[in-house]
Amino acid sequence: MKIFLDCIPCFVRQALDAARLSTNDKQIHEQVVREVIILAKDLDMSQSPPVMGQKIHRLIRKLVGTEDPYRDVKKQFNNASLRLYSKMRNYITDSGDMLETAIRLAIAGNIIDFGVNSKLQESELEKTISECLAAEFSDMQLKPFRRAINEAEEILFIADNAGEIIFDRLLIEQLPIEKVTVVVKGSPVINDATMEDAVVAGLPQIVEVIDNGSDGPGTILETCSEVFVDRFEKADLVIAKGQGNYETLSDVNKNIFFVLKAKCPVIAQDLGCEVGEMIFRKSKIFRNAVDLVKEAE
Amino acid sequence: MKIFLDCIPCFVRQALDAARLSTNDKQIHEQVVREVIILAKDLDMSQSPPVMGQKIHRLIRKLVGTEDPYRDVKKQFNNASLRLYSKMRNYITDSGDMLETAIRLAIAGNIIDFGVNSKLQESELEKTISECLAAEFSDMQLKPFRRAINEAEEILFIADNAGEIIFDRLLIEQLPIEKVTVVVKGSPVINDATMEDAVVAGLPQIVEVIDNGSDGPGTILETCSEVFVDRFEKADLVIAKGQGNYETLSDVNKNIFFVLKAKCPVIAQDLGCEVGEMIFRKSKIFRNAVDLVKEAE
Repeated sequence: MKIFLDCIPCFVRQALDAARLSTNDKQIHEQVVREVIILAKDLDMSQSPPVMGQKIHRLIRKLVGTEDPYRDVKKQFNNASLRLYSKMRNYITDSGDMLETAIRLAIAGNIIDFGVNSKLQESELEKTISECLAAEFSDMQLKPFRRAINEAEEILFIADNAGEIIFDRLLIEQLPIEKVTVVVKGSPVINDATMEDAVVAGLPQIVEVIDNGSDGPGTILETCSEVFVDRFEKADLVIAKGQGNYETLSDVNKNIFFVLKAKCPVIAQDLGCEVGEMIFRKSKIFRNAVDLVKEAE
Repeated sequence: MKIFLDCIPCFVRQALDAARLSTNDKQIHEQVVREVIILAKDLDMSQSPPVMGQKIHRLIRKLVGTEDPYRDVKKQFNNASLRLYSKMRNYITDSGDMLETAIRLAIAGNIIDFGVNSKLQESELEKTISECLAAEFSDMQLKPFRRAINEAEEILFIADNAGEIIFDRLLIEQLPIEKVTVVVKGSPVINDATMEDAVVAGLPQIVEVIDNGSDGPGTILETCSEVFVDRFEKADLVIAKGQGNYETLSDVNKNIFFVLKAKCPVIAQDLGCEVGEMIFRKSKIFRNAVDLVKEAE
């Protein structure tokens, strides 16, 4: 997905929100805004929005002089999500369709996105869980998803945020975990999950976890490590969580299922949905094994 | 009121909204955004926000090549407000305190602000009227206001927007109209009222109406005509409608009553109120005749 004109004021607002969350120094707030404007002046609109996000958050970390301004909120939402874990697991066990319920909960967890909302309160988690369990949700994609996870030999699950990764664990537990590798960010950016958060979620005990070598708030393949890109290319199914991974991977030629809550009007427009809607959708070029065999013939 | 950092992304968003309302040409939308970013790069934060607004809307008019991109919405909201006029007048006549009810309605009319909301629908007018008639409203300022309009010899009523000026007429009718001069903009900017709109409201039949010689979305004294500035200096009471006039006059050493709906978080912060609140408030330095006599002694 490319940068929309609407993203430009949003970059500046996000940068200011992030600067305020990172420091009380008003001079730094102003410096961040001024430098983001300079970045925006020469913006290449053909990039995906997280390319700009990566630059903005590098700038904030440099100006604030801290490696991870979101450390505290990541911890807070990891803890809050862990407290909800057993309850959510029961929702899944008690449901008619465990996979569907796990997908709904993984989407609910995507509310923990400090790029979109830097003022998120813990109290919104349970509300979002209830909403996502009750909301209308097309099961049209569930059958192809079941088939894809059965057919795939290597599944990459690209996680999104801290806290959310605990919701993701519930979905990962419903997958054929012997085939699953979970991917986290190489280093901190916004509240995106890194290896530390995967460990808090207990993921390394049940699946392989790797990092993508990047500090991009999405999967900007050009800035990822060779090791990750190699795994990405080899995987025959990718499950990509959240807006940043949708923005950066929606035009990539790969079998991907996108799992997210559409939280911004531009992404909702790109997806053809309403803001707030639950998204569980194949990439445009998705081809299953039967298609591939046909193409080879 | 000075520019807050939060105003900067808002300038860009407003410019994009205004460009979209003015033309369907996407190249112009992008050009507007890019040029507003260049303006923002060298922004003098000690100015009031409408100084930037004036530059932005000059730019849009130049790029779109039209003198008044808001002509249609101004007509639309003049007509919609005229249709509500008799009904609103009855609300005033039937009320316990006619002046208070007229102030409430004048504040309701301030919802017609395309700088803040370029997607305003006519249907929101009646809803806002009902809300403003019912809302909690401190009458603490009513007594000093009654006294000020009685004591004053020359009252300037600085109008804000088209459509809204018909709501304003209801308040003007409750004032000692022989002392009142209504002020409109010198030329079009956003949906601000010009002489044409004052005529639609039938104001020249009941009071003197002058223009301020400026295309600033507020009262930027440095860009107003000498004639207006002279009248402004001579007036012993100013009634200033709307956000733009608050932003540009809040630090001016003058007896002013501000009458507006606080529609943006930054103005609400400056006023110490909540977004959406009805504001009817004296300027900080307001001095009535008794104070002036005391000072002279």
